[in-house]
Amino acid sequence: MTSESRLDAIREHISKDAFANFLGAEVEIPAPGHSRVSLTVTADMVNFHGMTHGGLIFSLGDMAFAAAGNSHGQTAVALNVNIYFLKASKVGDRLVAEAREISAGGRTALYEIKVYNEDTGDLIASSQDLVYRKKEWFVSA
Amino acid sequence: MTSESRLDAIREHISKDAFANFLGAEVEIPAPGHSRVSLTVTADMVNFHGMTHGGLIFSLGDMAFAAAGNSHGQTAVALNVNIYFLKASKVGDRLVAEAREISAGGRTALYEIKVYNEDTGDLIASSQDLVYRKKEWFVSA
Amino acid sequence: MTSESRLDAIREHISKDAFANFLGAEVEIPAPGHSRVSLTVTADMVNFHGMTHGGLIFSLGDMAFAAAGNSHGQTAVALNVNIYFLKASKVGDRLVAEAREISAGGRTALYEIKVYNEDTGDLIASSQDLVYRKKEWFVSA
Amino acid sequence: MTSESRLDAIREHISKDAFANFLGAEVEIPAPGHSRVSLTVTADMVNFHGMTHGGLIFSLGDMAFAAAGNSHGQTAVALNVNIYFLKASKVGDRLVAEAREISAGGRTALYEIKVYNEDTGDLIASSQDLVYRKKEWFVSA
Repeated sequence: MTSESRLDAIREHISKDAFANFLGAEVEIPAPGHSRVSLTVTADMVNFHGMTHGGLIFSLGDMAFAAAGNSHGQTAVALNVNIYFLKASKVGDRLVAEAREISAGGRTALYEIKVYNEDTGDLIASSQDLVYRKKEWFVSA
Repeated sequence: MTSESRLDAIREHISKDAFANFLGAEVEIPAPGHSRVSLTVTADMVNFHGMTHGGLIFSLGDMAFAAAGNSHGQTAVALNVNIYFLKASKVGDRLVAEAREISAGGRTALYEIKVYNEDTGDLIASSQDLVYRKKEWFVSA
Repeated sequence: MTSESRLDAIREHISKDAFANFLGAEVEIPAPGHSRVSLTVTADMVNFHGMTHGGLIFSLGDMAFAAAGNSHGQTAVALNVNIYFLKASKVGDRLVAEAREISAGGRTALYEIKVYNEDTGDLIASSQDLVYRKKEWFVSA
Repeated sequence: MTSESRLDAIREHISKDAFANFLGAEVEIPAPGHSRVSLTVTADMVNFHGMTHGGLIFSLGDMAFAAAGNSHGQTAVALNVNIYFLKASKVGDRLVAEAREISAGGRTALYEIKVYNEDTGDLIASSQDLVYRKKEWFVSA
């Protein structure tokens, strides 16, 4: 398997994220360790203050995290996510979460995820996320 | 307004959480500073490993956080959530998030949220969550 | 080795925390998974606002975390600490950090640490802390 | 007061960090919102595993955070720090913490702090840190 067809097999597996599909999120993996997830906020995705729900913003970041964390074909599970909510957004806004691997060693790896409002360019959330890498490969190495 | 009818007005406002309603979550506020949110995991709420999605687990905790954080009738917005994922769960499991206020002073307040699998009793996630309290009351003090 | 003499061997190893000794902290391990560390704030331990330094408060919590995390005799290293600073304290205050294990499974374990001002009873910091457990025992199992 | 002499007055105030001076840390503020703190690990700064103490690494990051957070002359106090420990270091290593402001708005501001081993270039810790800005200026605006 070439490294490109291997990455395609990984993308294929990651595209089966049911919750991402349910919410209408688009998941891209430009390269191993790097992902981008985008979504348009609907009326179902707001809180009782009428702004985008924290759970939705987190979910977007978490999808980017899961995509980047598993982009090597090795099964990675989330240990911890720490997220800061920086700016509000609303129905109709297009949000983009971008994840990058900043450290990997042994059984854990760390990612930085930024969520932007694509329309205004505002940084709306920032997180660091830690995975545990199992000794399992869903696409063989 | 008695304190009980005041709390009912607050519950009424918090019940308008569109994302909670969309996902089928039930939100209870036994007392100010304390909330409980429950939900049954559906096939739409899993990740590509086939387990409950981290975004869903977080969202449940976030709904409990928002309910507890706003349970005094003062508008509170999330500054930060830090969550640890401790155990996997799956389609059909009944999850319950419970939030308790552990510190409040000045413009911020801190909450502890635990998410349990109601069927097995397992602790599946634990978080600490910080709000900023605006000088706004959605139910007057 | 009885379980009590085994715990004493663990306490003996943990008492060699050079930074704790340097700062004058007292470390106790009442039982596996549970520790208490106390210290009196000196004039060397304040920040440029004249209050107890965040690094000192964290260090106290970290010593409790390390003591509880290693209290089984298995080498545990910190992956992550997330701390909230809730109240200021000052020179002369007696601070106590208490750590409790709230989840352990596989290669990681989670602890809750609270730092109190012993004089006033105030909760001054609260954290959750995650360790990775190596396949090494500094006191054999 | 020119903006350069104003920044010097701020640096002068921040240089009074007693705990930084006690530990031998050097604090620099190249520009508002940006700081660098360095220190050589001594035998007093290790844990019972013989590696650099987590409390010391955190303290270094916290000094950078405090310097960057207060570099506008406005009194800023730490609300939360979330730190990941990525690599061990040891006695004699030269560590450098660098803090950068990534978001500021209203009463809170967020910083990213990276701690490097200056000798090897390794990233040894990464954190995000949140401050609350009081309506007080220690150097007038």
